[in-house]
Amino acid sequence: MYRMVLNVAAAAVTCFSVAHAETMPLSENLIGLTSPEGQTLLLGSEASNDYFPLSIHFTTQDNPAYCGPATIAMVLNALNVPRPASKMTLGLGMFDQENIFTPAATAVKPAASIVNPPYGMTLDELGGVFAAHDLVVDVVHASDSDLDTFRKTAVSQLRDNDKFILVNYLRKSIGQESGGHISPLGAYDEDSDRILILDVSRYKYPPVWVEAATLFDAMNTVDADNDGNTRGYVSVGH
Amino acid sequence: MYRMVLNVAAAAVTCFSVAHAETMPLSENLIGLTSPEGQTLLLGSEASNDYFPLSIHFTTQDNPAYCGPATIAMVLNALNVPRPASKMTLGLGMFDQENIFTPAATAVKPAASIVNPPYGMTLDELGGVFAAHDLVVDVVHASDSDLDTFRKTAVSQLRDNDKFILVNYLRKSIGQESGGHISPLGAYDEDSDRILILDVSRYKYPPVWVEAATLFDAMNTVDADNDGNTRGYVSVGH
Ligand SMILES: [Ca+2]
Ligand SMILES: [Ca+2]
Ligand SMILES: [Ca+2]
Ligand SMILES: [Ca+2]
Repeated sequence: MYRMVLNVAAAAVTCFSVAHAETMPLSENLIGLTSPEGQTLLLGSEASNDYFPLSIHFTTQDNPAYCGPATIAMVLNALNVPRPASKMTLGLGMFDQENIFTPAATAVKPAASIVNPPYGMTLDELGGVFAAHDLVVDVVHASDSDLDTFRKTAVSQLRDNDKFILVNYLRKSIGQESGGHISPLGAYDEDSDRILILDVSRYKYPPVWVEAATLFDAMNTVDADNDGNTRGYVSVGH
Repeated sequence: MYRMVLNVAAAAVTCFSVAHAETMPLSENLIGLTSPEGQTLLLGSEASNDYFPLSIHFTTQDNPAYCGPATIAMVLNALNVPRPASKMTLGLGMFDQENIFTPAATAVKPAASIVNPPYGMTLDELGGVFAAHDLVVDVVHASDSDLDTFRKTAVSQLRDNDKFILVNYLRKSIGQESGGHISPLGAYDEDSDRILILDVSRYKYPPVWVEAATLFDAMNTVDADNDGNTRGYVSVGH
């Protein structure tokens, strides 16, 4: 799916001088977090413990194939995993899209392989990199789950301060352009049955509230780059 | 003030292997946004229009002298100023700490001069770079203002969707380590008379709620690198 995305990038080189003031338009089934309705949903959310720890580490993926590394950096920071120090951070620490690739993580998925065909990371590689950071990880392919199980899991992790949940889904299935994508979840609103995706492709889309059923269906799609398994979700914690 | 900060960075090179799980501790007069009390203040804030547009563009300064460029990138994105496209953003646009330095901005303050003595940007340079992006800018040195005027201005800009306000203050004056710093404001809470600073030095401190009087006093300090003028605040809009 990243192939299509990167072709768009190549095409864009020809119109480099065009400056855009905003992200891409949202289809009617999605509610942007910064819209009045989106803000109201967060204020009335029944499971939002993960929103603030993630939002203070919200980051933009470094390149079109790096939704996985951006998501991993956000979640490692939000979990307060001991962070690598550098002179750029005054000897304090912060995970970023380069230093998440420790030797153990690189053994699972080398950074260079993410920006080469077939591009990006699979659900299983995502889980593997978290495990390489000595975290407790639960990788669930959507075909092995169902909407109710996913919803219960999401609510549980979104309420637990020591756990986070991230999703691997097909964008076109929720009405976005267009391929496989990875991002962490920030909150759940029971009244609308919507889940907040903190989309790391911040140049492309704002965070959106999507119906749980729509998100589940978008995860329950086959990833040709992952042995024909479906996409899905990953729970991560200490 | 940045000299002290950069010396700390040099010292840190000697303890590179130390990994920190969290940011530095907050003094008792500050309330972290992610604490229960900090979240409650945001939910009950009387002027928070700027929080969401800024938070979805929240970013970490690239190096210890780059609080100014990080702040500028966040505010340009939040204002929906037409953004420079690149192949890293699929032909869509996003301001970052490099591409804010257009020829006009560079004429005000070259990027290279920020990472060399005396390090960083002054209040007037900050305003000048925004003006170079064709925005309406109001630079106020604290010595030309007072607490009531600052509070009224902050509330007004925090409620106005087309304007943002950022501050240049002395960290040690609010109980932090330690030099001159720049960051955008996200919200104001009337009941506690506190202002939310979205601190771009995310490896160092979380966003904090500080009393308006404390922040004003921290702005009302002399910046030896700015002809002995005081620090202060900048309003920016279309
Ligand atoms: Ca609700
Ligand atoms: Ca959680
Ligand atoms: Ca209040
Ligand atoms: Ca405003």
